[in-house]
Amino acid sequence: MGSPASRVSGVELPPVFCPFESAIHPRVRQIEKRAVEWIGDSGMCATERERAWTVATHSADFFARFAPVADDDRLLAAALWVYWGFAFDDARCDSGPLSSRPAQFNALAGQVQRACETDSAAGTDRFVGALQDIMRRFRGFAPPTQVTRFTHAHRAWLSGVAWQIGNQAGGRMPGLDDFLTMRLLSSGGEPTFALLELATGVEVPDRELHRPAVRALTEMAILVAALDNDRHSLHKELSGGEADQNLFTVLMQELDCPLQDAVTAGTGLRDRVVLRFVRLHDRVRPTASGELAGYLQGLRYGIRGNNEWGLRVPRYLSGGHWPDEMDDTLLSWADEPSDVRPGPVEGAPSVAWWWDPDLA
Amino acid sequence: MGSPASRVSGVELPPVFCPFESAIHPRVRQIEKRAVEWIGDSGMCATERERAWTVATHSADFFARFAPVADDDRLLAAALWVYWGFAFDDARCDSGPLSSRPAQFNALAGQVQRACETDSAAGTDRFVGALQDIMRRFRGFAPPTQVTRFTHAHRAWLSGVAWQIGNQAGGRMPGLDDFLTMRLLSSGGEPTFALLELATGVEVPDRELHRPAVRALTEMAILVAALDNDRHSLHKELSGGEADQNLFTVLMQELDCPLQDAVTAGTGLRDRVVLRFVRLHDRVRPTASGELAGYLQGLRYGIRGNNEWGLRVPRYLSGGHWPDEMDDTLLSWADEPSDVRPGPVEGAPSVAWWWDPDLA
Repeated sequence: MGSPASRVSGVELPPVFCPFESAIHPRVRQIEKRAVEWIGDSGMCATERERAWTVATHSADFFARFAPVADDDRLLAAALWVYWGFAFDDARCDSGPLSSRPAQFNALAGQVQRACETDSAAGTDRFVGALQDIMRRFRGFAPPTQVTRFTHAHRAWLSGVAWQIGNQAGGRMPGLDDFLTMRLLSSGGEPTFALLELATGVEVPDRELHRPAVRALTEMAILVAALDNDRHSLHKELSGGEADQNLFTVLMQELDCPLQDAVTAGTGLRDRVVLRFVRLHDRVRPTASGELAGYLQGLRYGIRGNNEWGLRVPRYLSGGHWPDEMDDTLLSWADEPSDVRPGPVEGAPSVAWWWDPDLA
Repeated sequence: MGSPASRVSGVELPPVFCPFESAIHPRVRQIEKRAVEWIGDSGMCATERERAWTVATHSADFFARFAPVADDDRLLAAALWVYWGFAFDDARCDSGPLSSRPAQFNALAGQVQRACETDSAAGTDRFVGALQDIMRRFRGFAPPTQVTRFTHAHRAWLSGVAWQIGNQAGGRMPGLDDFLTMRLLSSGGEPTFALLELATGVEVPDRELHRPAVRALTEMAILVAALDNDRHSLHKELSGGEADQNLFTVLMQELDCPLQDAVTAGTGLRDRVVLRFVRLHDRVRPTASGELAGYLQGLRYGIRGNNEWGLRVPRYLSGGHWPDEMDDTLLSWADEPSDVRPGPVEGAPSVAWWWDPDLA
């Protein structure tokens, strides 16, 4: 049975195809409570309203779905970074005075990245100290390799935001191929999925994590989650009157078509990536080590959990000055992908290698 | 016996303190010949003059000193990246139309980085195809882990260049702490030292490479080489009339002093990092695996080789329209460091952790 489509600002959004297991950490409420306290004490929020919106990202709920089995302190630290990331994103990236000032953002990104790497760094930005607190937690329970993977992912994220801010400054809407490359980075999916090892304590050997097939699965999980977020935030972005860079505005330009057709095309593109993920996953999984199997499970949980969170979170749904409560209606899902054509998807050479038949 | 100081544009530059072994690959000339052919065929140089200046970077000589024992094809590929990096730097970073346009540079950096990661990426910039050729060579002889380390280092470099270009666009001279953090990245030292594993075939285990002490040694080697390059290029930058961001202009602002005093202060700062490198190296070396020992040797060769190359290369010495021949005069060195105070160096919290007594 198919699920009903939802309408957003006059545009029909089909239900989401998401053939992955759902799970959530049993102590998510206790962890959220600790996180909310931390946010209040962190010094990173300039106003009570900023604090309320940060809390309303429900990042504990978000990451409790990525890592439903995790030590409480580890999950807390991972969730704190997600709260931090959203707060930083709102104040310094997507909106705020730096959102179209690449020169200033590049400098801030350099300082923030150094604070991520080094406890001795002394940044003046209000987000620096809070990030260093989180990083000390990571270093307290994870080996240097896992922390280093996270810091590399952190830089990748900031480089994507810098690209996006540059486009915004120049009033430039990227083509599809550039957009997908940028969105892989700017979405924050790199650090978010790098949190999997930190939260669960699973340590994937280098030779497995960097295998091209595993890297392709990681990138596909990141892109699917990022494009799903473009869908989740469409209403917010349309009502904000911003013609921001997202999957749908990019496809409207790329295909010279109205928004409704871009939604259909974008959903199809995203579903084709999901199908490729499933096929490649099922080829890699049987010979994976226990650690890699745990990591792959995290990618699946993450894609699913990102939707369960993003389809209900006030961050994307609340239009008012203060955030509403988290929506708790039941979600319905598409039974079938909307597009089953094998890839690579057209016009996207930067990700074409995901469909390489020899990928191992 | 101390060595005589040299004078550059009226400023006295003391001899370099560099207590590391000197070596060079025995087949450097053959490898250089192959590299020069490749440059001509690569399509990355827009003019005959650009080609001549790229050849005159003597990058084969440069990297043959970093990796004096290496398979020819591996050393060639590593040297090609150095040629590529200098050519890209000149045309797209330090000078050229993007050198003060961060929005455009951020987008180009994103495309170039994706081409570094992915052979299927299709960039339009003339530097993209040449980079992909080099990356195919790396993937042909090195495992995914080593190639991935290089691509992460490559992104770090581009993020530093983006920071520098942002400063340039805003007419902003950074403070010392920001400058050192930026210079660690913008110098290209991250990818250059990541080439060590690719060229030599030595594969350092994750748990050793990411140890804080080993990371500190890597960063110190990068910074020493970067600051040495600031010294090598001082004449070029002064005669170009640019008050560019380098160790000495930064210290002139930081200490509110004339250039000669900044040279003294900068040399002292650099020597203190060398001393800390030596002390920490000597603590790490005895328990290092064979692979890590090989890597540490590469760091030492790199610091030394960078000076042997940089003190003679036309890139920094030739002032004319066309490059001169490589200088082949004998170099003389300082017997002692100019400043032996223990660190951390003042005003540089971002690198203060290098002096952490517990570093392991």
